[in-house]
Amino acid sequence: MSRKISESTVRRLSLYLRSLETLEGEGSVTVSSEELARRGATTAAQVRKDLSLFGSFGKRGLGYTVSELAGSLREILGLDRIWRVALVGAGRIGSALFEYEGFLRRGFRIVTIVDADPEKVGTRWGDVVIRPDRELEEALRESEVDIAVLAVPGPAAQEVAERIVAAGVLGLLNFAPVHLRLPDEVVLKDVNLVVELEALSFALARRSEAGEG
Amino acid sequence: MSRKISESTVRRLSLYLRSLETLEGEGSVTVSSEELARRGATTAAQVRKDLSLFGSFGKRGLGYTVSELAGSLREILGLDRIWRVALVGAGRIGSALFEYEGFLRRGFRIVTIVDADPEKVGTRWGDVVIRPDRELEEALRESEVDIAVLAVPGPAAQEVAERIVAAGVLGLLNFAPVHLRLPDEVVLKDVNLVVELEALSFALARRSEAGEG
Repeated sequence: MSRKISESTVRRLSLYLRSLETLEGEGSVTVSSEELARRGATTAAQVRKDLSLFGSFGKRGLGYTVSELAGSLREILGLDRIWRVALVGAGRIGSALFEYEGFLRRGFRIVTIVDADPEKVGTRWGDVVIRPDRELEEALRESEVDIAVLAVPGPAAQEVAERIVAAGVLGLLNFAPVHLRLPDEVVLKDVNLVVELEALSFALARRSEAGEG
Repeated sequence: MSRKISESTVRRLSLYLRSLETLEGEGSVTVSSEELARRGATTAAQVRKDLSLFGSFGKRGLGYTVSELAGSLREILGLDRIWRVALVGAGRIGSALFEYEGFLRRGFRIVTIVDADPEKVGTRWGDVVIRPDRELEEALRESEVDIAVLAVPGPAAQEVAERIVAAGVLGLLNFAPVHLRLPDEVVLKDVNLVVELEALSFALARRSEAGEG
């Protein structure tokens, strides 16, 4: 399992799982690679190729069993276990995440919360008491955190990220609108709203220019 | 300006702008392509190549003037104008966006809000009164919306997106964890937390497997 799997393959697996969950909800028992392709806006050949990287699924002419393939994809994506998550930054984004049902449903359990604001420290979100920023390293260790969600202001993000990594947490989901420079062994994913906004703005601006020109 | 610019180029332009804004804040007057490369985790040759797609910036041996290049990038990215935005779905994500200062700072002004929940309809966020879902098309037209932010639950997203497009809004920022199928002329950007979460989980699961095996 040390083969390199591309990021776009992983994204498609994610989408297939989403389609399979919808199909489960609709009561479907089997599904063809054509149908998965249609729902994922890709080709049947791509679906088969992506899945073949991880084993042999489905039967020729019969397609895939929805619940079986969903289970396999959950396992492949590491969703068959609990990930212990620290929320670093208890602002609006942190709060939205905390209440986001999809987070817990995928096994991401927020076990500790840290914030720099003295007014927030000591208050409780659900069962979790917000701890002060200076106790970040302690909180990460005591709560045996696997993944830190970084939801602090941009200028603070690099320093806080380095503290998280130094404390031994090597999975980061970054919401701060900055490019973090971290060691290669860190698994870093960005949810960068500003970048998406600017890509949208760029495409729309070019279109209106082309339309006017 | 009809040349095709890759998505990764646009993302890098976004990062360069972020670095330039930081440099402006630090009081820097000029910057080299090397320094921009370092801050954007790319190479100086890449910085020069990206910028050359849009004109001639900087002087050999002197680098770029920070404020000039920032201004040019804002123009290139379409950030030198106001984008009129509809918030479709006034839940947690919508609320986080509404209070997100970076949104307005980049010229994204929320001019109308729509929600399906009768308890929310008629309440006010800032100056904007939340309108009922059935008035979506009317709200988009009356407020001359450029961009719709889709922050509705997954199962509702495709249908609502189609209504938005049918009403003539061709820029969408999608927060729903689904793959939307929309006509090619629509500019669609996804901020898909679930996909990022699963990519993170995948990478961490493979690592712990490799570590144990």
